[in-house]
Amino acid sequence: MSLFPLPSVDDLHDASLASRLHQAIDNKTKPLGALGKLEALALRLGMVLGSERPALTQPQMLVCAADHGLAARGVSAFPSDVTWQMVENFLSGGAAVSVLARQHSLALTVVDCGVRRDFTPRDGLVVRKVAMSAAQCAAAVANGMEIVRALPGNALLLGEMGIGNSSVAAMLLARLVGHDIEACTGAGTGLDAAGRARKAHVLREVLGLHAGAIAPLDALAAFGGFEVATLVGAVLQAAEERRVIVLDGFIASAAVLVAQALRPHVVQRCVAAHVSAEPGHALLLAHLGLDPLLHLGLRLGEGSGAALAWPLLESACVILRDMASFEAAGVSRKDAE
Amino acid sequence: MSLFPLPSVDDLHDASLASRLHQAIDNKTKPLGALGKLEALALRLGMVLGSERPALTQPQMLVCAADHGLAARGVSAFPSDVTWQMVENFLSGGAAVSVLARQHSLALTVVDCGVRRDFTPRDGLVVRKVAMSAAQCAAAVANGMEIVRALPGNALLLGEMGIGNSSVAAMLLARLVGHDIEACTGAGTGLDAAGRARKAHVLREVLGLHAGAIAPLDALAAFGGFEVATLVGAVLQAAEERRVIVLDGFIASAAVLVAQALRPHVVQRCVAAHVSAEPGHALLLAHLGLDPLLHLGLRLGEGSGAALAWPLLESACVILRDMASFEAAGVSRKDAE
Repeated sequence: MSLFPLPSVDDLHDASLASRLHQAIDNKTKPLGALGKLEALALRLGMVLGSERPALTQPQMLVCAADHGLAARGVSAFPSDVTWQMVENFLSGGAAVSVLARQHSLALTVVDCGVRRDFTPRDGLVVRKVAMSAAQCAAAVANGMEIVRALPGNALLLGEMGIGNSSVAAMLLARLVGHDIEACTGAGTGLDAAGRARKAHVLREVLGLHAGAIAPLDALAAFGGFEVATLVGAVLQAAEERRVIVLDGFIASAAVLVAQALRPHVVQRCVAAHVSAEPGHALLLAHLGLDPLLHLGLRLGEGSGAALAWPLLESACVILRDMASFEAAGVSRKDAE
Repeated sequence: MSLFPLPSVDDLHDASLASRLHQAIDNKTKPLGALGKLEALALRLGMVLGSERPALTQPQMLVCAADHGLAARGVSAFPSDVTWQMVENFLSGGAAVSVLARQHSLALTVVDCGVRRDFTPRDGLVVRKVAMSAAQCAAAVANGMEIVRALPGNALLLGEMGIGNSSVAAMLLARLVGHDIEACTGAGTGLDAAGRARKAHVLREVLGLHAGAIAPLDALAAFGGFEVATLVGAVLQAAEERRVIVLDGFIASAAVLVAQALRPHVVQRCVAAHVSAEPGHALLLAHLGLDPLLHLGLRLGEGSGAALAWPLLESACVILRDMASFEAAGVSRKDAE
C-alpha cells in the first residue's frame, strides 16, 4: 500500500563536517569526552542541521490524538473518553505536556487524527480526522506530512494521546521487528498483572487476524492508529526537511519505527529523549540504534518526555556554539599532549 | 576540630505537608506514578521549600576553586596551572558551566578558595584564599557559610574546580564511608590505567599518613582541599536556610558527604543532579541515599551537571503548580476507581 509518493530521506554522510564537529568538540575547554552523552548529541545535532554552530529554532511539539476500537476490549486501565478529555486538557494548558511546553517555549499543536468527539475549533488544534478504514491509513500519513510542511522551525518533538495506543505500538514492534508480543506488552496507563496478561492475549489474537500485514504501511493500516499514522507522515516529512526529530515514549517511537522501515536514514535525524518504563520501548530504541538521554521511569506520553529532554538539546548546541577552545581560552592541555 | 558553631539543620519531617503533596501529585491528570522520578523530585522540592506550590527563585551556581599540593605527585592528567586558567575561563564566559549557567539564567559566583595565582578583582569572583594549614580548614568552612548567607534565592547549585581534587574526594569517601581507596579512585580528567594505579598508590600512602583523621572535620583538614571545605560550609548554611541544594559530580558530592557526617538532615535538602563516570560517585550517592536524575556519563565537574539537570527541577515545580487535577480538568479516572 502506497497511495502517494513518500518523501525521500538522504543519507547525511558528510565526513568533512563530521570531522570538523569532532575536532570542535574535542577542542572545547574540558577533558576529552568529559561531557559524556552530550558530546554525541552535539555531533548529531550538528550533522542534522549541517552546521558547526547549530542553533535550534522554533521547536514544534506535535501531539497527535486518536481513539482505538481495541480499547473496548479492556487493553487499557482508562476508558476511551479520556482521549478527548485529555485533548481538552492539552488545549486549556493543564496537561503535563502543556506545562512543560510552556516552560521551554515549545509551540504546541494538537491534531485530532480520529478522536470520537467533535471539538470546537481553536488555536493550536488541527482537525484531521480519518475514517476507520485500512485504505485511509495513507491519508493519515499524508496529513502528517502536510501538517509538518506548514510548521516553522528546524526541530520537531513528537507527542501522542490515545487510550489503547500502547497496544498499537506493541503490535507494530512485534510485527516489524519480530519480537514476541508478550515482550512488547506493558502496563500502559496502569494495568495490573492480570490486565497485562489479558492485553497480551487480545493483541496476539489481533496479530493473528492480520498475519499478512507484513509490509510497514500494511502493518500500520492493520493495527492503526490514526495518531500513529499521522506521526509517521510527520516524521518522514521532518526527516526529508532535515529537521531534528525528538522521540518521546513508546508510541511516538513506534511511529519512527514505521518511518524507519520505509526510509532507513530517518534515524539519523532522531534523538531519543528518554526510555520509558514500558518494556517495549527499550527494545524498540535498541532496534533503532538510539541511546536515550533520560532514564526517569516516565510512562506518560503526550510528548512529556520529549519536552523534559529538550533543554539538553539546547545545551549540546550552546556547548558547540559558545564554549571556548583550549586555544581561545589559553588553557593548558593534558600533560601528555 | 570545630572552631565555630556549625549551623543546625532540622529534620524536615512534616507528615501533613508530605501527605498534601502526595495527594496533589496523584491528583494531577496522568496515570498514577507516570511521571516517574519527577514525582519524587516534586515531593522533595515541596518539602524543602515548605510549599504545595514550590517556586525556585534566584538560583545560585557556586563554583569553588583551589589548588592541591598533591597534583605535583602525578595524580591528575592535567597540570595545576589549569586550575587558574579555568577560573579565568569561567569568568570570561567560555567554560561549560558558564554557557550552561547562561542558558538557564543561573547566577554564577566563582570563589578562589586557595588557587596559586592572584586574580584581578571582578564581578562574579569572590576571593577567600586560605593558607594551606590544617587549622585553617575551619576558616574555609566559615567562608562557605558566609558566602551563601550573602547570596539570594532558595536554591544553591554546587560546582568546583581544582586540578587534583578527585583525589581529595576519593580520600574523603574512603575515610568517611570505609570503602577501599582502590574502589574510590577513578580516571579524573583522563588518566590511563597505569596513571590510575599510581594515583591509588599515592592516595593510600596519604591516607596512611593521616590515619588518625577520622572525624569529619579532621579528615577534611587532612585531605583538603579548600574548595571542598568552602563547599562544606556552603552546604551547611544552605541547609540551615532550607534552600534546595543541587549536587554536581564526585567532588561537590564529597562536600555534601562531609556536611552530612556533621549534620545528617542536610541530605533532605539535596537533589543529586547526575551520577558521573567517576566510579566513586555512585558509591557516594548510594551512601547518601540519593537517586541521581541524569545518567549521562559526565566527568567534568565545574557544576556543569548541576546546570544540565536544573530544568528538571523547574519541571517538577511547574508540574506541582500548574498541572490540572482530574477534577479541575474533568478527566475520567481509571476504570477501577
